Amino acid sequence: MLKISLPRLRRDLTALARFGSNPGPGVTRPAWSPAHEEARAWLLVQMKEAGLEPSVDPAGNTFGRLGDGEPVVLTGSHIDSVPEGGTLDGALGVLAALECLRTIREAGAPLTRALAVVAWSDEEGRYGSLFGSRAFAGQLDAAKIPGMRAPDGERLVEAMARAGFNALEAPRAAADPRGVAAYLELHIEQGPHLEAKGIPIGVVEGIVGIRRNRIVFQGEPDHAGTTPMARRKDAFLAAAEYALAARQHVVRRGSGRSVTNFGVVEVKPGVTNIVPARAALLQEMRELDGRILGRLDRECAALARRIARRRGLGVAIERISRNEPARMHPEVQGAIEAAAADLRLRTLRMPSGAGHDAQNLARITKAGMIFIPSKGGRSHRPDEASDWRAIERGANVLLHTLLKLVS
Amino acid sequence: MLKISLPRLRRDLTALARFGSNPGPGVTRPAWSPAHEEARAWLLVQMKEAGLEPSVDPAGNTFGRLGDGEPVVLTGSHIDSVPEGGTLDGALGVLAALECLRTIREAGAPLTRALAVVAWSDEEGRYGSLFGSRAFAGQLDAAKIPGMRAPDGERLVEAMARAGFNALEAPRAAADPRGVAAYLELHIEQGPHLEAKGIPIGVVEGIVGIRRNRIVFQGEPDHAGTTPMARRKDAFLAAAEYALAARQHVVRRGSGRSVTNFGVVEVKPGVTNIVPARAALLQEMRELDGRILGRLDRECAALARRIARRRGLGVAIERISRNEPARMHPEVQGAIEAAAADLRLRTLRMPSGAGHDAQNLARITKAGMIFIPSKGGRSHRPDEASDWRAIERGANVLLHTLLKLVS
Repeated sequence: MLKISLPRLRRDLTALARFGSNPGPGVTRPAWSPAHEEARAWLLVQMKEAGLEPSVDPAGNTFGRLGDGEPVVLTGSHIDSVPEGGTLDGALGVLAALECLRTIREAGAPLTRALAVVAWSDEEGRYGSLFGSRAFAGQLDAAKIPGMRAPDGERLVEAMARAGFNALEAPRAAADPRGVAAYLELHIEQGPHLEAKGIPIGVVEGIVGIRRNRIVFQGEPDHAGTTPMARRKDAFLAAAEYALAARQHVVRRGSGRSVTNFGVVEVKPGVTNIVPARAALLQEMRELDGRILGRLDRECAALARRIARRRGLGVAIERISRNEPARMHPEVQGAIEAAAADLRLRTLRMPSGAGHDAQNLARITKAGMIFIPSKGGRSHRPDEASDWRAIERGANVLLHTLLKLVS
Repeated sequence: MLKISLPRLRRDLTALARFGSNPGPGVTRPAWSPAHEEARAWLLVQMKEAGLEPSVDPAGNTFGRLGDGEPVVLTGSHIDSVPEGGTLDGALGVLAALECLRTIREAGAPLTRALAVVAWSDEEGRYGSLFGSRAFAGQLDAAKIPGMRAPDGERLVEAMARAGFNALEAPRAAADPRGVAAYLELHIEQGPHLEAKGIPIGVVEGIVGIRRNRIVFQGEPDHAGTTPMARRKDAFLAAAEYALAARQHVVRRGSGRSVTNFGVVEVKPGVTNIVPARAALLQEMRELDGRILGRLDRECAALARRIARRRGLGVAIERISRNEPARMHPEVQGAIEAAAADLRLRTLRMPSGAGHDAQNLARITKAGMIFIPSKGGRSHRPDEASDWRAIERGANVLLHTLLKLVS
């Protein structure tokens, strides 16, 4: 039975981890940065050495192709990282795919379809969430490109120009869906479920939809010494009551896997002796079932209005973003399970709580994802890790799923 | 019966309001600023024209004296303001005192004691809370002067040097308590009680003590998509629960007039898709009874620890400042009530929820404060206001209280 080479995959992961490893802890390799562009150049060399045909599209997506003709089966992930991130998020999916194609080519396995490794641009969304796969799936709004910026204010147009790309050309990366037969991505779970259950392979059922709203309570900036407690219109206390109630609502009335977070909290005027007049929460809700997500979103908004009204405050709810859930294709899920069974590995069907390029690919082709356990569920931090044996198992499941998809 | 001249007082209030009236709304006249130093120069001229003997001490406190010898009866307030403040906070107490001494001198009323108007430095605490009166009461810690700074980082030493003072000399302003017979201050209430009850004169029983603590909850920065709700250690939700519970505790278990506020709220890392790992609240508690204040402080700290423990988080409680309550002297309270009775004005005994220079003077002499109604309880904002009739009544009560204290 065909197997990948763990030493070779390990060597590649170690080599890629060097790009962006200085000066801070972990890996800092944001899209279009010098570290990222050096990593891309290195990846193109590895593709060539593996006998693949390298190419880069106008959105900066990097491909390494094995075999001719269309439709092609795509497999990969991304090589950009969050600031001070780990060595596996994205990198594993690209380099395991590279190792799979190398293994298939060396074995001279017969292919009925072409295969290609891909590294999608700016998955982490420094300038725009899931940028490269969005462009490839024809979902990039050309009119918004000039306004896309990093948190530090740098424009995408300048960042891409520095890396030798014309951002305004990125929508030309849109693929003809008839040219893509399937998409498969291997990734660490970034959560605790597989490790906790002792199961080596996660079969992703879908990627959760995400709602982001800014909820702003408006009260009065009264003197905190002289205004009686009963007369105050304290925006922070209203926000506090809402956050606790909305969390409870999502836990009790969601799917059981629904989650919510209040990651950004701003209280104004922010002075010790003045009652908070304004409190803004950035609330995020995630859920795999689109109907449940929509209902929770509406119910939380009603809850915020009820709390504001009872306290005599104003409230404004601003929709920041809406991503609908993306279902992974049943055929691909079945292929992953069959490959795992061939390798005598147990599997668990599960949603992905994090966003991935596969959600864009699911719009134009049959998409699927394979998860392997994350140590302690940790990700987006320097101590992100998985076992080498877990990585080997995941890469072999990827290999045999690809073989099923192309044979 | 002797009365002050409202037109003259009104003219002075209007004249002083011009200093710091540009470019923003309201009055911006922080201590040691050019606008403040111009106002001080103007005040010294007014004192001279009123026949008073002007002087400035090493802490920048400005005096205008009527009569010779010691002990002296002091009356005044401050001429600095918060940014975009009103025209009465501080200014009324200084200019009504000036008008009273002018009226007494013109009437040739016999004085058994000297009288002096005073404007205390930096009451609003841009560089240090109640700075001038603290120095005068011998409470200024010389070692801390070099480290005193404005919120924008400017050092007190530089601000005072710019205004022609040597900050390191400020402790020399400390007065011999035997040289001060009493202190009396007229001020707007900055709260809603007098207006709501329709009573023209508040007799301040004391100035509340203030506790300021920074309460920092420490959790874990987990991924907000992949970490199950039950496993999160969310520092913001802990802080939200604490703020609601502590407010309720202070309202239910305080004196009935105890207040608390959470004016500064900081949540880190402050990223949409990361669970808040750190939430810091700046909590303030105010209460006239020192024992109740101390008990509330201890009980709130225990509450914070209980909530953190139940949620599996850490909590650190840092004492920022402690001001003990200051009682106004019964003799001065009695003199105010007698003066109001002479003028056929109703009075209400009440605490001051805000800090005032009188709390420092209370450490070295018999101190008292007279409140007049604030429109809508508003203060520290451009629309701070009182009626001209209310101002006239307050100034006449000040006049007749002073006459009782010096005859």
